Order: sequence, then structure tokens, then C-alpha cells
Amino acid sequence: MIKHFLTTEDWSQQELSQLLADAGYLKDNPIQNHLTGKSIALLFLNPSMRTRTSFELGMQQLGGTAIVLQPGEDAWGIEFEPDTIMNGDAEEHIIEVAGVLSSYVDMIAIRAFPAFKDWQVDRLDHKIKGLAAHASVPVINMETIVHPCQELALMMTVQNHLKTVEKKKFLLTWTHHPKPLNTAVANSALLVSSKFGMDVTLLCPNKHYLLDDKYMAAAKTQCEEHGATFTVTHDIEAAYQDADFVYAKSWGALPFYGDAKAEFEQRKPYKNFIVDGQKMALTNQAKFSHCLPLRRNIKATDEVMDADYCVALEEAENRLHVQKAMMLKLMGKDLTTQNQNK
Amino acid sequence: MIKHFLTTEDWSQQELSQLLADAGYLKDNPIQNHLTGKSIALLFLNPSMRTRTSFELGMQQLGGTAIVLQPGEDAWGIEFEPDTIMNGDAEEHIIEVAGVLSSYVDMIAIRAFPAFKDWQVDRLDHKIKGLAAHASVPVINMETIVHPCQELALMMTVQNHLKTVEKKKFLLTWTHHPKPLNTAVANSALLVSSKFGMDVTLLCPNKHYLLDDKYMAAAKTQCEEHGATFTVTHDIEAAYQDADFVYAKSWGALPFYGDAKAEFEQRKPYKNFIVDGQKMALTNQAKFSHCLPLRRNIKATDEVMDADYCVALEEAENRLHVQKAMMLKLMGKDLTTQNQNK
Amino acid sequence: MIKHFLTTEDWSQQELSQLLADAGYLKDNPIQNHLTGKSIALLFLNPSMRTRTSFELGMQQLGGTAIVLQPGEDAWGIEFEPDTIMNGDAEEHIIEVAGVLSSYVDMIAIRAFPAFKDWQVDRLDHKIKGLAAHASVPVINMETIVHPCQELALMMTVQNHLKTVEKKKFLLTWTHHPKPLNTAVANSALLVSSKFGMDVTLLCPNKHYLLDDKYMAAAKTQCEEHGATFTVTHDIEAAYQDADFVYAKSWGALPFYGDAKAEFEQRKPYKNFIVDGQKMALTNQAKFSHCLPLRRNIKATDEVMDADYCVALEEAENRLHVQKAMMLKLMGKDLTTQNQNK
Repeated sequence: MIKHFLTTEDWSQQELSQLLADAGYLKDNPIQNHLTGKSIALLFLNPSMRTRTSFELGMQQLGGTAIVLQPGEDAWGIEFEPDTIMNGDAEEHIIEVAGVLSSYVDMIAIRAFPAFKDWQVDRLDHKIKGLAAHASVPVINMETIVHPCQELALMMTVQNHLKTVEKKKFLLTWTHHPKPLNTAVANSALLVSSKFGMDVTLLCPNKHYLLDDKYMAAAKTQCEEHGATFTVTHDIEAAYQDADFVYAKSWGALPFYGDAKAEFEQRKPYKNFIVDGQKMALTNQAKFSHCLPLRRNIKATDEVMDADYCVALEEAENRLHVQKAMMLKLMGKDLTTQNQNK
Repeated sequence: MIKHFLTTEDWSQQELSQLLADAGYLKDNPIQNHLTGKSIALLFLNPSMRTRTSFELGMQQLGGTAIVLQPGEDAWGIEFEPDTIMNGDAEEHIIEVAGVLSSYVDMIAIRAFPAFKDWQVDRLDHKIKGLAAHASVPVINMETIVHPCQELALMMTVQNHLKTVEKKKFLLTWTHHPKPLNTAVANSALLVSSKFGMDVTLLCPNKHYLLDDKYMAAAKTQCEEHGATFTVTHDIEAAYQDADFVYAKSWGALPFYGDAKAEFEQRKPYKNFIVDGQKMALTNQAKFSHCLPLRRNIKATDEVMDADYCVALEEAENRLHVQKAMMLKLMGKDLTTQNQNK
Repeated sequence: MIKHFLTTEDWSQQELSQLLADAGYLKDNPIQNHLTGKSIALLFLNPSMRTRTSFELGMQQLGGTAIVLQPGEDAWGIEFEPDTIMNGDAEEHIIEVAGVLSSYVDMIAIRAFPAFKDWQVDRLDHKIKGLAAHASVPVINMETIVHPCQELALMMTVQNHLKTVEKKKFLLTWTHHPKPLNTAVANSALLVSSKFGMDVTLLCPNKHYLLDDKYMAAAKTQCEEHGATFTVTHDIEAAYQDADFVYAKSWGALPFYGDAKAEFEQRKPYKNFIVDGQKMALTNQAKFSHCLPLRRNIKATDEVMDADYCVALEEAENRLHVQKAMMLKLMGKDLTTQNQNK
């Protein structure tokens, strides 16, 4: 049974905590040689800046090699449906992609955003699951309908500033954006903040912006397990009040999934969900973060982005450290044990 | 006189056998440092997954560096015609590309599919020949109108399963596909199977699908030199009967070259050339392979692709090993001698 | 205060001379390990062959790692305007790009051609200045409205052939081209040839092709400081007469900036500015060079490009050496001192 990193739902809080500890060690000791001779294929079906740079660089800092492939662009388009007659655009099947890459490299990472046509299909996360099912090496999620690497980077940042995170108020706020974006980072923010026992508040304009039941229920359950609260609100002031950490993300309303135009029409009134200094003043001197990329003065004002309390760059940097920790873990290199042995 | 790897026609069976032996050694000993400080430029004028990954990774496993360039995309478009007034799309000439890259790197590899306009032009393989003519370092063919790296990987796979290959029945079968594809891999399959003395059978729907005379004649001659047979047939059952190795590929009919629509119309009746379990049952427990990418249930059924006798993934993996052997050879690193000296 | 490499205007002749000396050392000793564990991000907003290959390879030859990003293609599009409401195409701001990449890598290089709409905007070079303003690591210019890496490669080539360069006649000649190109290399050729005290002649069809006053004035001043001459002429024969080094480049006429069609109409009569053997025969056995890519038989004839006096390939090779010297300098590795200590 191969240990993949598809979603943090498959990993315990303890396991994630260990990764974060390892990441802290790697932040101070970036150059290692634990993965000399090892390699990873990075499959990007969508654009990337942080993810690509941090994985390529991280792998090289560990002594290994990263190969970047863009199926449908520089590499052949991939069919993910099983049992299909492949007379469309895709030239090869994920079964072969997984098999071939498994014979070349030691890990495979994939970024595969949803198709934005039918959420009932996309919510199954079938692309990465298909890859993992047919790969004989560990598979890493670089963002599908969740973004577990971002979760680790976020929690590393939260821990750095709040020290103890249990029952601290974590606010996830929806923001405006010209396009209905992926819910992945929002789903992930709920998953990780609740897994670590924070009091989680989800702020969004109306019920259309509630996230998929799967993630709402998981957050609720995980909060309860820690005796923490999970709150959903459409009241901006109440949401920001006394927050210890503010996390912003824009996403598309699931009831309008696949209809970007209708979705845009109904979100128009909600430009006021932008994160600004006035809202941040309501908090308990909260830090603010965002996964990036971020459209300034749409999602958050210049004032917020340029403030000392904005830790989005720190979170981005942490991507490098947590991913290196995770790759080491998947390759069976126990950094902590090795450190203890020193 | 620089030794290039443009086509196996320039290499003896003995030389290729040595490369295959070296590849076997590298399969067991993948990490080497023979090419430390060396570099290769990989020019992709067409998409690639296996080729790019295996060359990039292979070079790094040998201690060297690979630079990937996509002329016309991330790099400037290239003019290949000599003596031309360059007022078209191309910003620079292959003479300069070859000269500049030769001053940077130690090898240059190129993938340059034919233009699919005029076979009388494309059959001259002028793009890679232009590169080789103006390069001062070895040039490697990553698929033009032949695919010699694939030949090595195929023969390594054939040898692994058939042990002695002489006079074993090698079937190259045409298959359907939505588009008229390059004949390169088909040409190459004929070249390498005949060079190693197999009894070669070419199965295709009708005379339109015969390959270029050059490759048909070479196959015939090479078979004869080994006392082996070269057979062309349009009879599916006869072709599969007692085959020891089945190799599938789709390609466009040369008489319709440059007219994809007409070609498609006349190939319509031949969907039955798909490789399926029923056909494979006629063979001498043959292994099946394909160069990949492969459209499932168009070229071969899921049943065939998922069967134990499908060795397409093994052939893909062998690309890595044979290319490393070949790069070492071109760089004057005689792996076998070094092994013997150990 | 971070030392960037944005334009040679910020660097003294002495500093540049030291870089050229270092480059000469690196030409003979290409493989170094001074930058082990170091990394550079290469941001390409435009195509590249030489620049990308020489930076990627150069960094690896120094022991480090290069990450190639193409914002707007494989990475998110970048907004460069400050204080803007980001509701356009760009997904993130240069402030965040600079901040994030600074946390990952040790240097950031960017190629950002002008927008070709309004020269009064483009001449401010605001894209790279925005990057440098928000980066906490050295920033390198891979061509914006100047091309300082090319300047170094050019001067290394000039020095190699002319030995003493002061008061040698350097001819920069405009040539025809189907499109109105960037003035960067032309600006740079004026800057570097005058900084090293050559007698500089700018040959162009008419006053519309004069370069921006900023560069014309800088050239004039720098020539004067060396007691050298700066001449502008539209007379082809006079320009080539007794030239010691001929450098060709095509560029768009600034008064027609942003109107490629009108520009093309008015340049039509000037196809005779092509560099040919007849013109070269007027020189003092001058070498000819060009930054490449070059359209043969548009900018220069095959005769010129294939002549022994064409040193364009040497200049291209020198890109590798000078950029390695410059990266070492920016990373505080003083190659010369280290050599002296040996």
C-alpha cells in the first residue's frame, strides 16, 4: 500500500504535525542530500508559480531532480475516464501516464483543477485518484479540489504567529474576483484549521457560497473533536470580530457551477467582501494571509497587503519547506530520527 | 567526423547490440557520474512525454544537465531551408541554432515531425540533417521520419522476452486512429526488426498504407542478409498467426499525404485493425507492444493493454536505459570497457 | 542596498572590465562550484533561446539551480502597475512575485520586452524597476529596453578581436526586418561601445530611426570622456568606411511606436541597409556581429553570415561566460581574488 499525499483527510493531525516540525528544521537547514538520485515528475494541467518553483527548487535542494510536464501543452493530452473509446483530443490514458512515469521517477505530483462543468463529477476528484490508482510510486496533490500542500504551509504560518492554535478564531472569508474560482483552497482551509482544533468561522455572502457538504461536515466534526466551534455566517462584522487569523479566498458558488456568467451576475453585489484595513481593525490583532496569486484591490486592499500583519509571503515561502518535508516522508526519509541520531 | 545518432541506418547491428548491452547494465546501475559537467540541449518542435522525461532524467542520472527548448514556443522559430530570404515567421536559421547550441552544450537532440504537406520533401529528413550539418557536437534524433531511440527500446524489450530474436515472427500492424500520423515509428520498427534478423510481417489495410520504399527495401534486404523473411499482407488472421511479437502503430497513407480529410475517409472501413484479444489469441503467445501514446479502444482494446502480455510500459522504461547508453557512447564513454576494467 | 544588474549605466567601466576578465577565466574554466546551493529564477515574458540556455546552463555549471518561469503561460500573468484595481487579465502583482521569489531563490532574472504601445511609458523600464524595487535579492536584466548581458558579450567579442578598443571605429547599423523590433540591443550597443571609448557611428535611414535621446546623449558624453567621437549618419558608404567593427540590429522608428503598419510602410525603401559583402569591403577588415536571432538575407546576407569575419556565434557563446561572471559577482563571489589566492 503506497502512502500518497492526495488530501490531508488521509493523514492524522499527528502526522501533519510531524511534517510541520520537519519543515521547521528544513527552513533552517535547506540544503540536504537525502534524495540524491531520486526524482519527481511534476504534471501541471494548469498554471503555477509558487508550486512549480517550490517543488523544483525543493527537490534540487534535497539532491534530487524534478521534471516539469504540461500535458496538453508540451506533453500529450491525457484521458482520465476509464473504459472509454479515445477518439477525442487526448492522445493517451492516465493508466499509461501513471505506469510510464512510475518507471522513470520516484514520485509524481499533479495539478489538475476541476473542469468547472459538473460539480457532481468534479467533487469525486477522479483525475488524481486515477493517477494514484495506476501509479506504483507516491502521488502528490499540487491542487485539485483540495490543496493539501497549501494546508501545510498555512498551518506552519498560523503556528508561527499564534503558537498554540487550539480554539483560536480562524476566519475564512470569501472575497470577490472577476471569475468563479476553484473551491480547493477554501475546502483545504476548513480541513486544516479544524483538524488543528481552531474555532473556525466561514464568512460568505449567502448560502450559494457554502462549500461542499463533505468539507463543511468534516470541519464541523473535527472542530467538535477538539471542543472547538464551527460557525457559518454572512455577517462581515461578526465574522471579523476578535478573529486571530484571517484567511481570504474567492471561489465560485456551487449552485451556479459551470455557468460563469450567471455566477458573476449574482456575485456582483458582494464587492464589499474585500479585505480592508477597517475590517482588520475589528480583529484581535489578527494576521492576514492568502494562498496567492491575489488580485490587489479586489480580494484585499493595498493597505492590507502591504501591512505588517500580512503574512502571505511567509505562507508562500513555507510551501517550500513543507513540501520538502513531505517528499522526504514519502520517500521514507525520517528527518527527525536522523536528527535525533546526530 | 562527428558520430551522430540520426538513424540506425548509420549504425551496424553490432554497434546497436553493444548499446543494448550497455543499456542493460544501466538498468541495474542507473546512477552514474560519467557525464558530470556535460550538457545536452533538447529541441522539441512537437509534444513529448516519454522522450522529454527520459532524456532529462537520463542526463541528470549520468551527472549532466539537460536544457529543454521549444522553438516557436518559448524559443524563436527556426528556418530550415538554405539560401532563403527569411521574411516569414521564423526568426532564426538552423545554421545559427546549430552553431550557438554547439558552443553551449555537448550534444543536441531534436524532435521534428514532418510537415505533412509533401512527402517527397519530408522523406529527405532535411531538418535534422540541417542541424547535424551545422552542429559541431553529436546530434540525436528524438523522432523525425524515423525514431531510432524507440528502435533501441523496442529491441531491448524484444530481446528480453524472446531471448534469441533471429527468425522469430515480428508483426508490425497498422491500426486505426482519428488522424493520419507520422510513419516514423513504423519505418523504425521495420528497420530494427529486420536488422536483428527477425521474420518481419507488415500488416496494413491496403497498398496505400505501404511504407516508403526506402524502408520497405531496407527491411527486405536486411531480412535476406539473415536468411529471414519479409512479408507484406492485408490478411489480419494470416498476419497474427504464430506471431512471436506484435507491434502496433497507426500512420497516414502516403498517397494521401497532406490531405488529412481524404485520408480519413478512405481509412474509415479499417477500424477492425484494432489489436484485440481475439487476434492476440492467434499468436504464439506473443507479447504486444506499442511506442505510446496510445488511444485505448482505438488502436488496442483495454483487454490487450491491461493484459500480462502487454509490454508497452517496459518498452517505455527502456527508453531511459538505451538513451543513456547512447549518450555515453556519443560522449566517448565506453561503459563496457570501464566495467571490464573494474 | 542590493546590487542589481538592470543596466550598465549603473556600472562603471572598471566594474564591467573586471566582469569581462572574470568571463575570460570562466571561458577556460567553465565548471565551478561557487554557487552550490544557490538558485536563480528566470522570468521570461518573451521567447528566448540563447538567454535561457546560457543562464540555465551557466547556473548549473556554477553548481546552482535555475528555475524557468513564463508568466502568462505556465505561470500566472503579472500586473506591473502600482495602485491598481486588478480586474484585468493579470492574476498577481509584481510586488508579490518579487516577494515570493525572493524567499525561494538567490537571484531573479527577467526578460520583459516593451509593450510597443507608448514609448513614453516603455522608456521608463517600469517592469524591471518594479521587480527590483520589491525584490530582496539581486535582479538581472535579460532584455527590457536595454540588454546589458548582450553588452558584455559584445564587448568581450570586440576586445578579443581588436585588443585595444579605444578610438577604434564601431559602427552600429540599422537593418531592415518585417517587424518594428525592440530598440534594446541598439541602445545597449551605443552604451557599451561608448563606455569603452570607441569611436561610435550610428547609421540609420533617417531621423525617425534615431534612438531615444537618453541613449544618444549617454553615448555622446561617454565618447567625449574618452576623447572619442560619436557620429550619426544616414550615409551608408561613409559609415562603413574604415570601420573596425560592424554591429547590425533592426529596430522600430520611435515616432511610429505602437503603429507597426505605418512604421512598415515608411521603412520599405530601406531594404538596402542589409549588411552585405560589398559594404563590408569598405571597412578596415572589420569583424561583423549581431546579437541573434538574425533573419538571413534580410538583415545580413548569407555571404556575410558565413564569412570568417562574422563573429556572431562567438558573441553568443560569450553570453554564457559573461553571465556566469556577473552572477558570481552579484552573489559576492570574487573570482579574481580567489584565483589570485590560488
